[in-house]
Amino acid sequence: MDDKQLLMIPGPTPVPERVLQAMAKHPIGHRSGEFSQILAEVNQGLKWLHQTSQDVLMVAGSGTSAMEAAMVNFLSAGDRILVGSNGKFGERWALVGEAYGLTVERVTAEWGKPLDPEDFRTRLEADTDKTIKAVVITHSETSTTVLNDLEKINGYVKAHGTALIMVDAVTSLGAISVPTDVWELDVVASGSQKGYMIPPGLGFVTVSDRAWRVYDTATLPRFYLDLGKYRKAAAKNSTPFTPPINLIFGLHAALQMMQTEGLNAIFARHQRHRQATRAAMTALGLPLLAADDVASPAATAVAPATIEAEYIRSALKQRFDILTAGGQDHLKGKIFRIGHLGFVSDRDVLSVVAAIEAIVMASGEQYDAGAGVNAAAAVLSPKA
Amino acid sequence: MDDKQLLMIPGPTPVPERVLQAMAKHPIGHRSGEFSQILAEVNQGLKWLHQTSQDVLMVAGSGTSAMEAAMVNFLSAGDRILVGSNGKFGERWALVGEAYGLTVERVTAEWGKPLDPEDFRTRLEADTDKTIKAVVITHSETSTTVLNDLEKINGYVKAHGTALIMVDAVTSLGAISVPTDVWELDVVASGSQKGYMIPPGLGFVTVSDRAWRVYDTATLPRFYLDLGKYRKAAAKNSTPFTPPINLIFGLHAALQMMQTEGLNAIFARHQRHRQATRAAMTALGLPLLAADDVASPAATAVAPATIEAEYIRSALKQRFDILTAGGQDHLKGKIFRIGHLGFVSDRDVLSVVAAIEAIVMASGEQYDAGAGVNAAAAVLSPKA
Repeated sequence: MDDKQLLMIPGPTPVPERVLQAMAKHPIGHRSGEFSQILAEVNQGLKWLHQTSQDVLMVAGSGTSAMEAAMVNFLSAGDRILVGSNGKFGERWALVGEAYGLTVERVTAEWGKPLDPEDFRTRLEADTDKTIKAVVITHSETSTTVLNDLEKINGYVKAHGTALIMVDAVTSLGAISVPTDVWELDVVASGSQKGYMIPPGLGFVTVSDRAWRVYDTATLPRFYLDLGKYRKAAAKNSTPFTPPINLIFGLHAALQMMQTEGLNAIFARHQRHRQATRAAMTALGLPLLAADDVASPAATAVAPATIEAEYIRSALKQRFDILTAGGQDHLKGKIFRIGHLGFVSDRDVLSVVAAIEAIVMASGEQYDAGAGVNAAAAVLSPKA
Repeated sequence: MDDKQLLMIPGPTPVPERVLQAMAKHPIGHRSGEFSQILAEVNQGLKWLHQTSQDVLMVAGSGTSAMEAAMVNFLSAGDRILVGSNGKFGERWALVGEAYGLTVERVTAEWGKPLDPEDFRTRLEADTDKTIKAVVITHSETSTTVLNDLEKINGYVKAHGTALIMVDAVTSLGAISVPTDVWELDVVASGSQKGYMIPPGLGFVTVSDRAWRVYDTATLPRFYLDLGKYRKAAAKNSTPFTPPINLIFGLHAALQMMQTEGLNAIFARHQRHRQATRAAMTALGLPLLAADDVASPAATAVAPATIEAEYIRSALKQRFDILTAGGQDHLKGKIFRIGHLGFVSDRDVLSVVAAIEAIVMASGEQYDAGAGVNAAAAVLSPKA
């Protein structure tokens, strides 16, 4: 049916009606007092969400622009960096580093498996000359739905003493706790169409005091993504370039909704949806790509053995107006990904599970009737 | 009054209701067939507006990101470029070039005066070694409301033979004819919150075949702004990074409205508003910053002699809910700028003129009663 789509991809994510309505307001001047007031309130909300006392800098652009900003502001040509690469996005940061002439060392793991923190420990401990300038970690690797062990790897970075930790939190921020200040994360980048419950078009970056000191001597070229300009403007509740005003109207509304729900409730909801989805897929006999202990709360990759992944994805779309994501690169056709990130309710999760169950049933596969929905329901509505 | 503001600044510009409503739709998947279809139609509309057969590449970002893309994709460190600088934006491109290690030669004129094409001719003719790689021109200099003579300067660039012409058309595209293909403009950059009748958040770039050949050997670092990625994706009606989906919904609607109005009618409307505004300010005894023959159709800078510019601007806002722009940098407090760019009607122009007339009247200045409105009306509704 037209206009009836349920978005269950890991970005863009569903947007609440009141956010859409906020975005539909007439733009106002971006240098006006009214807009400064909105920026001030948005910044307060973002600090709360990012668990930091630093200003959360907003860049008009995609999540990639935010990650590129992370790199170009705190590094110089030739700098040695370790980049965790166990999926499409980790690999992207390696490519960004190479595009800027950095000496990129990939720390890899098979797609679908987590990065091994010991690989980082070994290299960081061996670096007695302190030539490693930064370690880049994709927290939630969206392409495989694996959650990397940021806390542990960051511990080894802190033991190293001088390397900066740079975090792609694009699909983790708002889905799972990212304690920016407590963990002393130097640079954290994210994007709006994920846990923030608004459409794409804004990137977010936070920067630690330590990273700002490195900024002063870092020499990679930058202008639009020069975070120093954003910091200076943010201090005056402004922006260095014209911001995406209507998207910020939407963010303003979304942050109010998130604050009403509460951080812990938001994280618990994402955990619940992760568990419900995984339990249901397992009950339906559909294998999961990521193991239980490393599965992201943002999305679940399913790797069906006997039914084609693309068949399920296509049937979900054609028959039930549910959009899921396919696999990327060499995982294309091998997996499909169910997003449960952002403005997703228990009903949404139950709907996608029921629809997949109906598709499995229609395919003639052997399975226990009702198993998927029952397994999800047991997680979503546990007996008292 | 709340929610009653009339935006008369040179960006963001007013947005039609149907565009706002289009932006308030639920996002859809950016890799879906439905969205590809929208991208295809948007690209067709943009080609029409940009008067080119080349794909119009869309970057999630501000106008500055589009201009930075123009520079980093077609130049290499140390390259010599001429940058026209007669206002805040021309000067910005000089700063971008310097940030990337280019050898920037400014061709300057006083703020409020146009660039002198002869200055370019002299330097280009003297460059027999062909060391000048590009000439960067801000077509409509928003900070002073001066329109530079792009056609004439471009003629000298063409006579040079190898330098690329790079154009900031941020406040000229959609306001005055920018015949991209006919003039063989190599790189043209623009931004969404101007003549496109949508909010900020999208930059646009077109690239000539000649510039694409230079792209292959240009070595400035780039990733997010690597236009080759955008070209490859555009050929498949896609984008390299997640696009600002809802803004593109709005652009889709805006382009349909613009095509219904017609290019020549749009340009005539902007000329009419320029003439009406200028005639009215002159009739009210308020001097104009830019001379008649070099005045931009996008906005009009007024430099009042006996009333404070900021007093008029503040009274327009406080008493009549009309937002105009102030002066920038050393023109702060010396001028105010009336935007008449994008979705602006004859009534809007008449309103701002009447409001300024009321403020002049209340100030006790000597003036001819009704002179401003009458002068504007004579332009807007000439006798048959």
